[in-house]
Amino acid sequence: MKRPDGQLQEEKVFKDPVHRYIHVRDELIWELVGTREFQRLRRIRQLGTTYLTFHGAEHTRFNHSLGVYEIMRRMVENLEKKGEWDKDERLVCLAAALLHDVGHGPFSHSFEKVFHMDHEEWTRRIILGDTEINSVLSRMGADFPMRVADVIAKTYDNKLIVSLISSQIDADRMDYLLRDAFYTGVSYGNFDMERILRVMRPSEDQAVFKQSGMHAVEDYIMSRYQMYWQVYFHPVSRSAEVILTKILHRAKHLLANGYEFKLNPRHFHTMFRGETTLEDYIRLDESVISYYFQEWEDEEDVILRDLCQRFMRRHLFQYVECDPSEQMLIWPELQDLFKKIGVDPHYYLVVDSSSDLPYDFYRPGEKDERVPIHLLMPNGSLRELSRESDVVEAISGKKRTDHKLYYPEDLLLDQSEFAEEKQRILALLKKEEE
Amino acid sequence: MKRPDGQLQEEKVFKDPVHRYIHVRDELIWELVGTREFQRLRRIRQLGTTYLTFHGAEHTRFNHSLGVYEIMRRMVENLEKKGEWDKDERLVCLAAALLHDVGHGPFSHSFEKVFHMDHEEWTRRIILGDTEINSVLSRMGADFPMRVADVIAKTYDNKLIVSLISSQIDADRMDYLLRDAFYTGVSYGNFDMERILRVMRPSEDQAVFKQSGMHAVEDYIMSRYQMYWQVYFHPVSRSAEVILTKILHRAKHLLANGYEFKLNPRHFHTMFRGETTLEDYIRLDESVISYYFQEWEDEEDVILRDLCQRFMRRHLFQYVECDPSEQMLIWPELQDLFKKIGVDPHYYLVVDSSSDLPYDFYRPGEKDERVPIHLLMPNGSLRELSRESDVVEAISGKKRTDHKLYYPEDLLLDQSEFAEEKQRILALLKKEEE
Amino acid sequence: MKRPDGQLQEEKVFKDPVHRYIHVRDELIWELVGTREFQRLRRIRQLGTTYLTFHGAEHTRFNHSLGVYEIMRRMVENLEKKGEWDKDERLVCLAAALLHDVGHGPFSHSFEKVFHMDHEEWTRRIILGDTEINSVLSRMGADFPMRVADVIAKTYDNKLIVSLISSQIDADRMDYLLRDAFYTGVSYGNFDMERILRVMRPSEDQAVFKQSGMHAVEDYIMSRYQMYWQVYFHPVSRSAEVILTKILHRAKHLLANGYEFKLNPRHFHTMFRGETTLEDYIRLDESVISYYFQEWEDEEDVILRDLCQRFMRRHLFQYVECDPSEQMLIWPELQDLFKKIGVDPHYYLVVDSSSDLPYDFYRPGEKDERVPIHLLMPNGSLRELSRESDVVEAISGKKRTDHKLYYPEDLLLDQSEFAEEKQRILALLKKEEE
Amino acid sequence: MKRPDGQLQEEKVFKDPVHRYIHVRDELIWELVGTREFQRLRRIRQLGTTYLTFHGAEHTRFNHSLGVYEIMRRMVENLEKKGEWDKDERLVCLAAALLHDVGHGPFSHSFEKVFHMDHEEWTRRIILGDTEINSVLSRMGADFPMRVADVIAKTYDNKLIVSLISSQIDADRMDYLLRDAFYTGVSYGNFDMERILRVMRPSEDQAVFKQSGMHAVEDYIMSRYQMYWQVYFHPVSRSAEVILTKILHRAKHLLANGYEFKLNPRHFHTMFRGETTLEDYIRLDESVISYYFQEWEDEEDVILRDLCQRFMRRHLFQYVECDPSEQMLIWPELQDLFKKIGVDPHYYLVVDSSSDLPYDFYRPGEKDERVPIHLLMPNGSLRELSRESDVVEAISGKKRTDHKLYYPEDLLLDQSEFAEEKQRILALLKKEEE
Repeated sequence: MKRPDGQLQEEKVFKDPVHRYIHVRDELIWELVGTREFQRLRRIRQLGTTYLTFHGAEHTRFNHSLGVYEIMRRMVENLEKKGEWDKDERLVCLAAALLHDVGHGPFSHSFEKVFHMDHEEWTRRIILGDTEINSVLSRMGADFPMRVADVIAKTYDNKLIVSLISSQIDADRMDYLLRDAFYTGVSYGNFDMERILRVMRPSEDQAVFKQSGMHAVEDYIMSRYQMYWQVYFHPVSRSAEVILTKILHRAKHLLANGYEFKLNPRHFHTMFRGETTLEDYIRLDESVISYYFQEWEDEEDVILRDLCQRFMRRHLFQYVECDPSEQMLIWPELQDLFKKIGVDPHYYLVVDSSSDLPYDFYRPGEKDERVPIHLLMPNGSLRELSRESDVVEAISGKKRTDHKLYYPEDLLLDQSEFAEEKQRILALLKKEEE
Repeated sequence: MKRPDGQLQEEKVFKDPVHRYIHVRDELIWELVGTREFQRLRRIRQLGTTYLTFHGAEHTRFNHSLGVYEIMRRMVENLEKKGEWDKDERLVCLAAALLHDVGHGPFSHSFEKVFHMDHEEWTRRIILGDTEINSVLSRMGADFPMRVADVIAKTYDNKLIVSLISSQIDADRMDYLLRDAFYTGVSYGNFDMERILRVMRPSEDQAVFKQSGMHAVEDYIMSRYQMYWQVYFHPVSRSAEVILTKILHRAKHLLANGYEFKLNPRHFHTMFRGETTLEDYIRLDESVISYYFQEWEDEEDVILRDLCQRFMRRHLFQYVECDPSEQMLIWPELQDLFKKIGVDPHYYLVVDSSSDLPYDFYRPGEKDERVPIHLLMPNGSLRELSRESDVVEAISGKKRTDHKLYYPEDLLLDQSEFAEEKQRILALLKKEEE
Repeated sequence: MKRPDGQLQEEKVFKDPVHRYIHVRDELIWELVGTREFQRLRRIRQLGTTYLTFHGAEHTRFNHSLGVYEIMRRMVENLEKKGEWDKDERLVCLAAALLHDVGHGPFSHSFEKVFHMDHEEWTRRIILGDTEINSVLSRMGADFPMRVADVIAKTYDNKLIVSLISSQIDADRMDYLLRDAFYTGVSYGNFDMERILRVMRPSEDQAVFKQSGMHAVEDYIMSRYQMYWQVYFHPVSRSAEVILTKILHRAKHLLANGYEFKLNPRHFHTMFRGETTLEDYIRLDESVISYYFQEWEDEEDVILRDLCQRFMRRHLFQYVECDPSEQMLIWPELQDLFKKIGVDPHYYLVVDSSSDLPYDFYRPGEKDERVPIHLLMPNGSLRELSRESDVVEAISGKKRTDHKLYYPEDLLLDQSEFAEEKQRILALLKKEEE
Repeated sequence: MKRPDGQLQEEKVFKDPVHRYIHVRDELIWELVGTREFQRLRRIRQLGTTYLTFHGAEHTRFNHSLGVYEIMRRMVENLEKKGEWDKDERLVCLAAALLHDVGHGPFSHSFEKVFHMDHEEWTRRIILGDTEINSVLSRMGADFPMRVADVIAKTYDNKLIVSLISSQIDADRMDYLLRDAFYTGVSYGNFDMERILRVMRPSEDQAVFKQSGMHAVEDYIMSRYQMYWQVYFHPVSRSAEVILTKILHRAKHLLANGYEFKLNPRHFHTMFRGETTLEDYIRLDESVISYYFQEWEDEEDVILRDLCQRFMRRHLFQYVECDPSEQMLIWPELQDLFKKIGVDPHYYLVVDSSSDLPYDFYRPGEKDERVPIHLLMPNGSLRELSRESDVVEAISGKKRTDHKLYYPEDLLLDQSEFAEEKQRILALLKKEEE
């Protein structure tokens, strides 16, 4: 039933609430979706702990990955119409878009922090390793998996293609802003994607945007800015993330110290030792995490048990704004007080910082330089976005950082014992906030 | 910080993508949402296996339960304005709406079939048993949990209230049609809820609808009809459900026969014996199921292993339409052929039937009578909906049933052995479809 | 700057709130939009007097005509992909779609009734006569205007193309249902157009629809059914139409009887005599009508003045349901009573009937046969829609008619004189309604 | 049938595509909507000439006025719940919201420029003069019309109320951003109104916004900024406005110079003399304008005729960006050239400037001070918006101005005569743009 041109007999579609339909014409794409490693993304939420704040946001990376693929498909279709596009690159682009997040694990943010892992590195290992995905990709040619991996790693020599999937305005970001706005129900993430695609033009090493569409691009940047502060950095989701991180720390600590778990954390052994195998990594998903956390609600270890109960039942930490410079002044006293009342500050008194740089242009000499967005002016020249847009200029290069101090308010309000210390703690925290 | 009137200091809201905001003013509701048993609904999908067909439909019963509560809140607000409403019933209504699905387990449809369980019975046990929910409800008075349970069981003496939560047009159905339409991305489920609420009037033992709003009600019935056939009975989701059911059967069979599991199915012991405890039931969620299925992908038992791999990797069964009367003719031969090729027909050749009765009026003498929808005519009389609406009349009482025969097409297409038998099977199935 | 292939240098787009963007690639289309006769459609509302009921519905036929063009463009693009499409027909289709309503005059429904005009005949005259549209079309070849006119007249020999623009499921109806739903704010008109276009297949003499898309077609039929009764036949809009019709009657009567108008109705002279010229017709739009009605608010003639004031200030007639058979019984008495109180029943006591046949199949021997909608079954055969769909079957061929009796309630409630007669009239009307 | 509390027997609703429903409970509001002067707003478009660029934007001020009323109704309902609201003011607020635009004439922007009129002054005259609106308002008390007029004039002593209807974030702006976005189809105007209303709090002399809702307010400001540049100042709409303005100038000039019109511009006599009467003003609407322009397409005067044809047939002027300082250098030469080719530069060579100040705070000593938006901080203090928001800070007080030079490109491209001069003109204009 296979056709020599690699096209499906009949186009397949997925109904998608964000893009209406996702169109698949290539066998390659259809088969990648059917691999075990891609299906696994159904068990990894797109927004980690955010569903505890925005209950609508229960969507997974499977959902998002199809969306990025669809946007890329439209981009490629548009660029092909402009006639300056190497047709051999089409499938590389589509596969890279579909697979760009395949290396994400459960609650990636926390896991990466605790275990010093890197989901991009895992994406690469899944594409190049002994996996169903690699097997499907290899049918397109021996070097095909590497080409796809290089696009995702941004080392591919065709920089235009790299820019379509990872730049300050790419298929990945466009999908997640629209999708996360849809599922959370907040309106901020919306922008006119259709117009952006229409004004997109291929340039030497990146896609550029006709100046007449500048306001659509501006609006996209603002959407990104708003979504970060309204959704992605929401303090309640971060509270859940703080607890999650501390659970992983505690479990790792207990295992290292020979603690006898009722439920042996088999899935974590290689990870806790820093030697995670590909097979172990692929098996790890949010169902497995949820299973462990539920079991650990009955562990002997008080800290592990309490933190797991908090996470599963959404009894989260409270927070106050904190100023890192002033915080230092009260930190020693706070830690002492926590110890006095029998609460380990390592697990129960946590500063979490979030920061975002919504847009930036080159700053020579700095590392982490970002390729800026360029407008294509009527006379054919290019002009960096923030030079045309006051609004973007206003937020360019301005890193905004937010520090919050998380703590278990419920424990402090129960003043049946240590009333005095607890009142002092609450007073210090309150003062901190002012 | 508690106020004597049971109201929160400041109204709380949940951002909801379907109703925009969900408003909570009562401490009771806020505390119910915070219970362990209600939070558990976050781990049970609203639409079971449907996410394998409509990838957007990953939303949970937590999501839906808040929605039903919000619709009930608006209904009560409307009815209170009409002035014929017993204010003492308000919290009973709201709590019943919020909790009406709290007894659902993972993939309820399959579990109920295999283990002869009934989620409504479990809802009752959770509300009346030793749970956090019961403890919160009891603060409103000793009989309060029973009143809530009675509303859900439809035995409450105020039938008007019962009708708001379970009738042919109730808060539950309104939310799930809108919500499932939103998450799947199909447009069929939409109808004008605001208008329906506006024309709703309290009557003796049910809510009725002003005749001027007849078309909105008609449209709601059609939405329901469409969603059933487009989404709820989608043959691909049912394929996944068939496999899921067979996994449970197989595991139960193996346990009963002393099979040694690599992963002991502790969570299922009491259930497999038909003696599930409340605590065991509450612990069972879709993460746990997913964990087991993933582990069982490596079991020795070929059938269990294969079925779990199919479910987790979405390698589902193919299907043909089948006519139960004709099917009987080929059934013995098909079963023999399956046995010959070494595939157990008990697990791999499955008829699944779905049927829906989108609307019905009383049919005296029949059990399962449904309370019909009544229109309030301009002259004050009531008139049953299908007498006013041609369209509703057309589908009233017409039970539509659909039978499908599911089988593993991949096994049959691999004709490296048993080629003859497999061709004969495929021919029989193809004929069946005609 | 013209390109030999008739394509624009760069695609033009119109932002459209219903279809998001309307894409124009052909010079022909661009130039047709720029003609005087097409621009005139900006001054003719799509829904006549409906804006007096649904204030959002102020959109014009210009708006709708672009929408029909866009749907046709997508249909043609789809059909071309299927490979069985004569490319020479493309521009004929697009032009016919764009121009199908160009012969509509202001408040067509009323004008056609009073002056026995036919907008389809005027469309033909505008396309074939001495107009800018004819001049643009003729550049494509001498027979091109006639081909376009024939498609609109349904006499074109390629019946497939005729069916795309006028059949029971065509570009015209799809656009107006979606558009009118959008502007009125009622949700009933929505259906999944994208899916319908996807399952559309060319057949010998009409477009057919893959059976797998049956429910989308069913939903479209239901939308049509709902919009007719919820919007198009709304009794308040019909009240305005009744008054409008009576104004035209009165003006015609006055002119025929030598009445001296303060404002000479120059624009109507040829029309009132039944000899409207093309130039006069093109000049007539809703601004002109509005101008006259405003001026006539000050005419000497009491009836003309009163009716114009009613229309401009939305002091409409009240109505009761009426049953034509029973109505006959009270009609003579009602008319007498109206005369007694000095109100001319010819202008102030009006029965208006609306009827719709939402879907029909062939009924041999009947005139006005409609081409039914056919489904393309998996085995390649065709099957008429109502044989597959219970819901469509229920409404097939069922003509629903609604009669209403309109009268000036305000005059009857003012009982400073003729109190007895007016009470009797009100009593008769009230009885009629029961 | 009137109730002593001034409430309608049953709430009335208007279906509205933006706010879904507009709810009317007060007889006063219902009767104001029914006045001749309010109904007249149906004949005045909300966005003037914008429908020539965005064809969807055919909505009228009637539409918008109902929307502003509805937002105000919700604001008042919210503020009443907070308990610090004088109930006597409710109807004043609602009436002022409904009537705030009642003094707008056709294409206000152009008329105000040419005839030095002021729609706010006309609103006042309609409310206080001998009108149906005044008569309805007066039933609420002799001083009621004046109170309503004072709110609109911003001279009312309750500044909180004034701020709800005219400030940098008020019911008027909220409605027009949402509504214009809806009808044009551009997404920029959307923001989360429901959240803004939720965080709104009454303060001494204005409404303030809880700091937790800062991002919603920020998003509103950005929407406003985007809509101005994307829609309100669109160069094509301005081209139509330029022509419209020149038509009015020409007609005034002709009348003053004793030109004999075929159609005597009776409607304009008092206006052209600067002595417009209330009755004449009320009669002037866009239908009347359209009628005149259509008639003037056949006038003897070449300029009037040509400009009217351009407007009615959308043959607009082309434009180039222009820099006022450089423009001066080429201006004399351009004017001379235009005269040489027989085209009057007074009518055919026009600079149009638009500017917007999207947000500002007090700048002491400046006139036109704007009341800034204040945030209500958690500690109860107020803080000006731009001090909290980088993005708003970026655009605060920055007046952005855009100058365009409009001219009839078609005349210049027809080089059958004066080829040399026309080429020189085109060259100058092209240079200007660079």
